[in-house]
Amino acid sequence: MNLRESLQAARLAARRLATLSGPERSALLHDFAAALTEPAAQQAVLAANAKDMVAARQEEKAGRLGAALVKRLALDAKKIATTVDGIAQLARMPELVGRTLTHRVLDHGLILKRVSAPLGVLGVVFEARPDALVQITSLAWKSGNAVALKGGREAAESNRALCAVAHAVLAKHGIDTAAMLLLEARAEVDILLGMDDLVEMIIARGSSEFIRHVRGHTRIPVMAHADGICHVYLHQSADADIAARVAVDAKCSYPAACNAVETLLWDAGAGAALDAVVAALAQQKVELRGCAETRKRHPHIKAATDRDWDTEYGALVLSIRQVPDIGEALAHIARHGSRHTDAIVAQDAEAAARFMAEVDAACVFHNASTRFSDGYRFGLGAEVGISTDKLHARGPVGVEGLLTYRWLLYGRGQCTTDYSPEGRHYIHRDMPVD
Amino acid sequence: MNLRESLQAARLAARRLATLSGPERSALLHDFAAALTEPAAQQAVLAANAKDMVAARQEEKAGRLGAALVKRLALDAKKIATTVDGIAQLARMPELVGRTLTHRVLDHGLILKRVSAPLGVLGVVFEARPDALVQITSLAWKSGNAVALKGGREAAESNRALCAVAHAVLAKHGIDTAAMLLLEARAEVDILLGMDDLVEMIIARGSSEFIRHVRGHTRIPVMAHADGICHVYLHQSADADIAARVAVDAKCSYPAACNAVETLLWDAGAGAALDAVVAALAQQKVELRGCAETRKRHPHIKAATDRDWDTEYGALVLSIRQVPDIGEALAHIARHGSRHTDAIVAQDAEAAARFMAEVDAACVFHNASTRFSDGYRFGLGAEVGISTDKLHARGPVGVEGLLTYRWLLYGRGQCTTDYSPEGRHYIHRDMPVD
Repeated sequence: MNLRESLQAARLAARRLATLSGPERSALLHDFAAALTEPAAQQAVLAANAKDMVAARQEEKAGRLGAALVKRLALDAKKIATTVDGIAQLARMPELVGRTLTHRVLDHGLILKRVSAPLGVLGVVFEARPDALVQITSLAWKSGNAVALKGGREAAESNRALCAVAHAVLAKHGIDTAAMLLLEARAEVDILLGMDDLVEMIIARGSSEFIRHVRGHTRIPVMAHADGICHVYLHQSADADIAARVAVDAKCSYPAACNAVETLLWDAGAGAALDAVVAALAQQKVELRGCAETRKRHPHIKAATDRDWDTEYGALVLSIRQVPDIGEALAHIARHGSRHTDAIVAQDAEAAARFMAEVDAACVFHNASTRFSDGYRFGLGAEVGISTDKLHARGPVGVEGLLTYRWLLYGRGQCTTDYSPEGRHYIHRDMPVD
Repeated sequence: MNLRESLQAARLAARRLATLSGPERSALLHDFAAALTEPAAQQAVLAANAKDMVAARQEEKAGRLGAALVKRLALDAKKIATTVDGIAQLARMPELVGRTLTHRVLDHGLILKRVSAPLGVLGVVFEARPDALVQITSLAWKSGNAVALKGGREAAESNRALCAVAHAVLAKHGIDTAAMLLLEARAEVDILLGMDDLVEMIIARGSSEFIRHVRGHTRIPVMAHADGICHVYLHQSADADIAARVAVDAKCSYPAACNAVETLLWDAGAGAALDAVVAALAQQKVELRGCAETRKRHPHIKAATDRDWDTEYGALVLSIRQVPDIGEALAHIARHGSRHTDAIVAQDAEAAARFMAEVDAACVFHNASTRFSDGYRFGLGAEVGISTDKLHARGPVGVEGLLTYRWLLYGRGQCTTDYSPEGRHYIHRDMPVD
């Protein structure tokens, strides 16, 4: 079967996924979770991942792979357990396909409903991170969609093993395994991008350059999970203790994550808060790169260059810049941010309110770590990515980002010409929904 | 100013539109409605439209313009009154910018809100229909967005006159007229499509080929208002009277509209309903084109060719095809439909339920005219178009389709590492919203 035929088969298989009942869907997801914890299957997955890791560590030694990528690639029982917990959460969530979102009486006997529906076939291109394959697949099943997946080549063995587990679960539930298609060649991605008659959405996770490439080569709508250049801004009213706690969590709890902070901005009046941050990050062995004003106060800090303000380190590195006031902090974020997540540390309510109102990003936080920007933490169950787009879904994208809706109208033979200033009038009364 | 500079100015002006208070925004819209009914302004608009119409009628005579386009181009006091009524409705609707959509307690003192926000600058390319300019502009203002508009060249004079009215209203309210940019040259559209750093969404209205061109030449997300190849299917259980009423309204009340029916499908068992439809449409002088089976029953009907099933006539023409059963009706719609609006006429509840469940279109109707597929009739206030896409907004798109949202998190210095199976737990409790 060539890719077009595979996608046509995926489209057909998607119809079965779309029409599963709530209990059937939950059973499917629970079985996926169970299959991943079953010892033989887990052993096979970990063995496959070990092969990927051997190759990746060699590449890392040769300087061709970064440490962040290698860390994301690694699977262990604990990472699998977290992922399985996410699937179980999805299974327990209420059924989201076929939900009535709007119920409006247009007139007596003319009832409009807006009902949630799966998209169809999703194309997902993601980095070398095998747990992402599991998350994306379970979100696709929860939303009733088929998927064509292409993971980073470094994770090829892991992905194949995980896909085999998922296929066995689909087969057990009488669903054509065509509903989950694993692409292995890079060239297949470009073919996929051309299939705008079969694929409803491309979810692209990767660097900004990669996302630009994808957008430039497809007519299919793209949901991008791109770079995160996140900021923490210390207002002059910042509490030093909060500043240090937020900075450590935002930088050190998972530096490879897209919601990790890359640049710290500080008011000249926030010197004490800056000192607390610098001391706390030094303990965590974070490499700091500062502007001239920052280095006047902390001369041991390396000098930052202009490039630093546009860099996602994905590692224990943080750039630090002094700003004259909140206006300049907002301007810096507008210019260098990636519209992902930006946070202010401030006790002053007015400054916080201005920051929350004016930053044009998916997530804007006050006195909280940028790392909260996450589907699980937001209560979405799991996430397919964090969208830095503005349309459809923004920020952490859970099941709802993989759904569309249809408008259903139930009448008795009504005509639009019945309605006019002199004739019948619309009622337009909204009724309660689920 | 070149186009890039104009769009940068639009972006700045958009910030003022975004931060208008509810009452300020309503006043702006009410003033726009008032300005369009002010005699001198209306005279100027109608005079400009008359110039466009003279040129268009010459083109029509020369066979270079279709009657449907010319009809859409014409403005009169009544059309303006309808449009003005739409603006007044928008002005009366509650404020939609800055609305809290989600209010979730993640933990004590850690509050997540999802708040609606404008997109920024919208690029809108639309057909030669001056009332669309007014609708789009008022929807943009209601949603706090700036717009760059390019209408069909046949409406150039009308659009210029309407834009002058809108600019005067903006100026009166202290808003930079850069927030509404009228493009006049076709070449500017291609430049606009390249400005993915300044424009957040392209709304493209036009033929399928035009939409494909737009999608193939931009990285900006596109919301398409394309062809409508809408179907009415007469199930064997169809009521003949309902069938005739629905068919006449769907075909004749505004044949140039995208929600007008183009193809009628009928079960062999629906002969009486078909006869009623054929008789009713004959009275309305609709040209009918039938398949062989249809012509066996109604020999005076012209023969349809395969091309008819894929044609949006936009005129008093209807193609008619007999189908063996509902399965074939669904297959015909899946193959030839444009995912816009499809309707079933049936008394049988089971057949209706199957049709409503299985048609993958923005709007699916039972015993109602396809012409109900409209933002005003759906109670959305007005519409910027009818989206045949699945992402972001589907079907009639009102103000909400021009909004995005931001996630705001309010904390007290919390860190993600505070939360773990052994540590703090998330509460994830949803609170009531506006």
